[in-house]
Amino acid sequence: MDIAALREKNPEHWMKAAAIRALTLDGVAAANSGHSGMPMGMADVATVLFEKHMKFDVAAPNWPDRDRFILSAGHGSMLIYSLLYLMGDKQVTHEQLKNFRQMGALTAGHPENFLLDAVETTTGPLGQGIANAVGFAMAEEMQRAQYSRKLVDHKTYVIAGDGCLMEGISQEAIGLAGRHSLGNLIVFWDNNNITIDGTVELSDRTDQVKRFKASGWHVQEIDGHDAEAIDAAIEAAKKTNKPSMIACKTHIAIGHAAQDTSKGHGALTDADQMKAAKAGYGWTSAPFDVPADVKAQWEAIGSRGAADREAWEARFAEASKQKQDRFNRAYALDVPNKLSATIKALKKQISEDQPKVATRKSSEMALAAINPIMPETVGGSADLTGSNNTLTADLGVFDTDNRKGRYVYWGIREHGMASAMNGMALHGGIRPYGGTFFCFTDYARPAMRLAALSKIPTVFVMTHDSIGVGEDGPTHQPVEHLAICRATPNTYVFRPADSVETAEAWEIALTSKDTPSVMALTRQNLPTLRTEHKLKNLTAQGGYVLAEATGKRQAILIATGSEVSLAMEAKALLEADGIGTRVVSMPCMELFAAQDEDYRRKVLPAGAAVRVGVEAAVRNGGWDQWLLGERARPGKSDFVGMDGFGASAPAGELFEKFGITAANVAQKVKDLL
Amino acid sequence: MDIAALREKNPEHWMKAAAIRALTLDGVAAANSGHSGMPMGMADVATVLFEKHMKFDVAAPNWPDRDRFILSAGHGSMLIYSLLYLMGDKQVTHEQLKNFRQMGALTAGHPENFLLDAVETTTGPLGQGIANAVGFAMAEEMQRAQYSRKLVDHKTYVIAGDGCLMEGISQEAIGLAGRHSLGNLIVFWDNNNITIDGTVELSDRTDQVKRFKASGWHVQEIDGHDAEAIDAAIEAAKKTNKPSMIACKTHIAIGHAAQDTSKGHGALTDADQMKAAKAGYGWTSAPFDVPADVKAQWEAIGSRGAADREAWEARFAEASKQKQDRFNRAYALDVPNKLSATIKALKKQISEDQPKVATRKSSEMALAAINPIMPETVGGSADLTGSNNTLTADLGVFDTDNRKGRYVYWGIREHGMASAMNGMALHGGIRPYGGTFFCFTDYARPAMRLAALSKIPTVFVMTHDSIGVGEDGPTHQPVEHLAICRATPNTYVFRPADSVETAEAWEIALTSKDTPSVMALTRQNLPTLRTEHKLKNLTAQGGYVLAEATGKRQAILIATGSEVSLAMEAKALLEADGIGTRVVSMPCMELFAAQDEDYRRKVLPAGAAVRVGVEAAVRNGGWDQWLLGERARPGKSDFVGMDGFGASAPAGELFEKFGITAANVAQKVKDLL
Repeated sequence: MDIAALREKNPEHWMKAAAIRALTLDGVAAANSGHSGMPMGMADVATVLFEKHMKFDVAAPNWPDRDRFILSAGHGSMLIYSLLYLMGDKQVTHEQLKNFRQMGALTAGHPENFLLDAVETTTGPLGQGIANAVGFAMAEEMQRAQYSRKLVDHKTYVIAGDGCLMEGISQEAIGLAGRHSLGNLIVFWDNNNITIDGTVELSDRTDQVKRFKASGWHVQEIDGHDAEAIDAAIEAAKKTNKPSMIACKTHIAIGHAAQDTSKGHGALTDADQMKAAKAGYGWTSAPFDVPADVKAQWEAIGSRGAADREAWEARFAEASKQKQDRFNRAYALDVPNKLSATIKALKKQISEDQPKVATRKSSEMALAAINPIMPETVGGSADLTGSNNTLTADLGVFDTDNRKGRYVYWGIREHGMASAMNGMALHGGIRPYGGTFFCFTDYARPAMRLAALSKIPTVFVMTHDSIGVGEDGPTHQPVEHLAICRATPNTYVFRPADSVETAEAWEIALTSKDTPSVMALTRQNLPTLRTEHKLKNLTAQGGYVLAEATGKRQAILIATGSEVSLAMEAKALLEADGIGTRVVSMPCMELFAAQDEDYRRKVLPAGAAVRVGVEAAVRNGGWDQWLLGERARPGKSDFVGMDGFGASAPAGELFEKFGITAANVAQKVKDLL
Repeated sequence: MDIAALREKNPEHWMKAAAIRALTLDGVAAANSGHSGMPMGMADVATVLFEKHMKFDVAAPNWPDRDRFILSAGHGSMLIYSLLYLMGDKQVTHEQLKNFRQMGALTAGHPENFLLDAVETTTGPLGQGIANAVGFAMAEEMQRAQYSRKLVDHKTYVIAGDGCLMEGISQEAIGLAGRHSLGNLIVFWDNNNITIDGTVELSDRTDQVKRFKASGWHVQEIDGHDAEAIDAAIEAAKKTNKPSMIACKTHIAIGHAAQDTSKGHGALTDADQMKAAKAGYGWTSAPFDVPADVKAQWEAIGSRGAADREAWEARFAEASKQKQDRFNRAYALDVPNKLSATIKALKKQISEDQPKVATRKSSEMALAAINPIMPETVGGSADLTGSNNTLTADLGVFDTDNRKGRYVYWGIREHGMASAMNGMALHGGIRPYGGTFFCFTDYARPAMRLAALSKIPTVFVMTHDSIGVGEDGPTHQPVEHLAICRATPNTYVFRPADSVETAEAWEIALTSKDTPSVMALTRQNLPTLRTEHKLKNLTAQGGYVLAEATGKRQAILIATGSEVSLAMEAKALLEADGIGTRVVSMPCMELFAAQDEDYRRKVLPAGAAVRVGVEAAVRNGGWDQWLLGERARPGKSDFVGMDGFGASAPAGELFEKFGITAANVAQKVKDLL
């Protein structure tokens, strides 16, 4: 690589990019860990992007109509931190830069959206950023259509590496972006031909240009170190109405001894090699220092967007009060005031009508009430619309000729859907929910974890939540998925027992600002159990006494979802035999665990009653805390559920086969007494 | 669709294919569930494939050198069942056909490899079949190179639908197959343009032909109802040395009122419409009946491969005894006799040397001993070879010019790797293992579940198993993944504490024939704890007393993996204060739970001792059964672990921050006493 020639060609650009490279080397060396090569390789692209194109104001990194920048190759986090420091971000101070990857630093190993305002989304698990970005770009299209170009008109820029493009989720993202002609989405592919194990060739020979073109993208190929070429390519990308991929041929760890090698991917900490690299760059400053003129140039870049922001604020001030309020409310993730009354009215209606429907249908009933009063909701399904019951009448379908549509046909892409929904929510102004079969939580899992980790209130509508699936058999019958979701921190796992609990669960999910929700819903019909209308949202307590024992309480049955009605049947059987039985419905273990001890003891009193848990899933999903803990009587509890995979047969027969029946629950109680 | 013209063009072919269509309609109607349209649409392709090309002998569906047929679009299971019944498969009897999707039937909703010998792999979760197939085809290449073309020379055929191709995993599979020029892999794309929600256009406009070509595939486009075109395309596909995709333009539910509609995707049960469809086919037989001449033709097809098989058996008989034994042993999934002695010797050496290494390094030590004596092992990593320590010296790298290579650079494709490994194991003759970071269990999860469900002993080498990851931060720090794996039925989750336990875990994993294993291994160094050599594999008991209390036993510490040495430190602290403390190492909860009660009580006696569990992960991963159950003293147990996501900082500091320290464990014990 002829570094000298690059320096000479465009000295001013060179020094700005060199600042990123030098700070990256310094940050990684100080931490003695991290990834040096990627920020060094993509410094030119990032410099041109921020200098000439990004609508970004470092003084207001969360201004709604800013361009979004997503580092899908999140291991190159020093790229973001260097940029933010150089531009004068309030959070990424000199001190933070030096504390890269240290305890308590905002400059974490991978960029975390919950630590830094200017980080749009947490990245690191590869491929997530590019899929998030599809959601960001869809959100922008939707809101531009809703609020007009005056209020919403921005780009989503992504840097993706070879790793991102090898992950399967990238194909889901590429397909979606192409299908919906997301012209405001611009992806830079850091085409450095290096992965951790060696050259890309070791594991892939895919022609990425042809691949993106096959899905309808606008594709350009440039030298990723040529500032003029980068500028021209971005200019062209901004003009096309297709999503754009700019293949940037780069040299990882450019100018360092490890350039173009897999070693360059990792932490470059050798002092002599760093010195040599910096000398080549013409960089003479001490570690973490930046020459005043270069810093000043970068700070000017950081405030380039201020005028745009002020102009936007002026336009926003001209908008109607109603439009402003709606915009501000949605961006604040506040629900409309009338949501509470709407849910209460729905609950009352249900308690009167007592429908016998599947909770997936109950969910549709709730959405039919919610969607008209929350224009920020966006629904969808991974090709199971009729099964997930996610489409309500008023939404309209999002398409190239209907950007106002609020329903997305995601296709058979659970992972891409989940990740794009996260992106929509992070973009702001949208409350996304999307459906698939609960079993296919598996496919969406990396994005579901990121929703929890990075505090995104995405709602995952997971229907067909047990062996109640029936004939489709074990591949489609979740048994461990409640356990999986419950083991994940910061996740509400709702398994409502009837239409009332389902409505309550939706209210909680939409009121949550930083916790994702999983709705585990049945395929099969269930009776309405909450036949007496209560204003209070009982599901918010996680678990509650649904039916008190008649006479002396000898048993407590704890159940969720479809098994609550079964517990009620067992109660009837037991009470016919004189065994007073309380039924506790526990639609959300996380919320029950969060109640104070007094409340939990009221629901699950120590006393003499035996306890039996009932759930058509594995016990190892949080049950022992209620059956063995919470002052349960030693040896006096049991569980009725699944201890292996399901089978293919009509649902009713499966519940019999696996012993998940009222008779069996009653028998377990008797065995314990 | 001009059915009459098709019938006339090739009447004999037509009736054979019509038999599949009629049986499919009958099976789905009898079950009142299932998917009619796909088998109807692909009946022509399947007929030509089996009649003219598949090396298949219905009398010996598991003959090793048969061609493999994989229905990636597994919902079209009646295609397989019809074919097998028609050809005279011993398992798929007339009765089984009629019992489609009923309790106990072998003809389950989706094809299950553990129910039917002729089903190569369980499919249903979309995209898995095509990714499995990559593993099948790689296994074939490897074994052909090892055993010569005389003994191994067969094709892997796949039927994939639009759903398979939209799932991200398909891109991982396509990329791998292209990279490795898997010329014996032939994929039929059922290009019917229909998904459940409507036309493919609703969610995707990807040009699949261009997409496959971009990854180096040989691609043909044909009319999927033209028998001659199908035959010619397969002929051409067999000749190329690239993987082949044959895009078959088909009509879903051909000849039925629901043809070319999303309704046609599902269960077509309307009696009049079925009658009309059959009339159009010229099919006059009663439900489930097949005219004798058609059945005879199909039975002849079923035995076409008998001669091939006999010829192969003759060639096999000529091979050296050594080669035969090795082949038979590997296909039977039997370990070599000397494995046991090899592991014992390694354990002895470790107990003497007492290395202080990470368990990922311990795993490499075990593999270095195992790989030379088990030529059937195939290792690999999803681009983390140096981190996962999966490559040992003797393996060689699998490549187009080194088919004998036993190490696969899978690229950044955890999901594709896991699914292809499942395929390799199912192919027979290979014991695959592959590595990634434990956190990325998330990406591999759908394939890991299928390994468990369909009884495949794949070994998942999951390193960097806790906050011990350090600076990379919470996206890379598993906290719930032990819980996820433990909640999954039929999965061994090993978290070994040192090099001895790691060696023992590998022995168990490789000795298992129908249970996958997860090796959760540390990034950070751990001391050798098993310093006294024992011949017995203690890990096989799941949990055992590693160190007995000195003096009166007042506390039992139960720990796994990296926290066992920490428990030993806590024991030292406690015993210095006169508190006799037992340390139980529990490298595999599943195996401990499987021990008889007597043994478990010996390890965890009821008595008076308090119990503290220690694991750098969430408690909700099976801990309560040991801390609250197993006759624990009520209120006298506690847990030291994680109750949320991790953070970015040096590992040692994180253990301090989250209170996972010997001092904290000791304090918890004291608080309980």
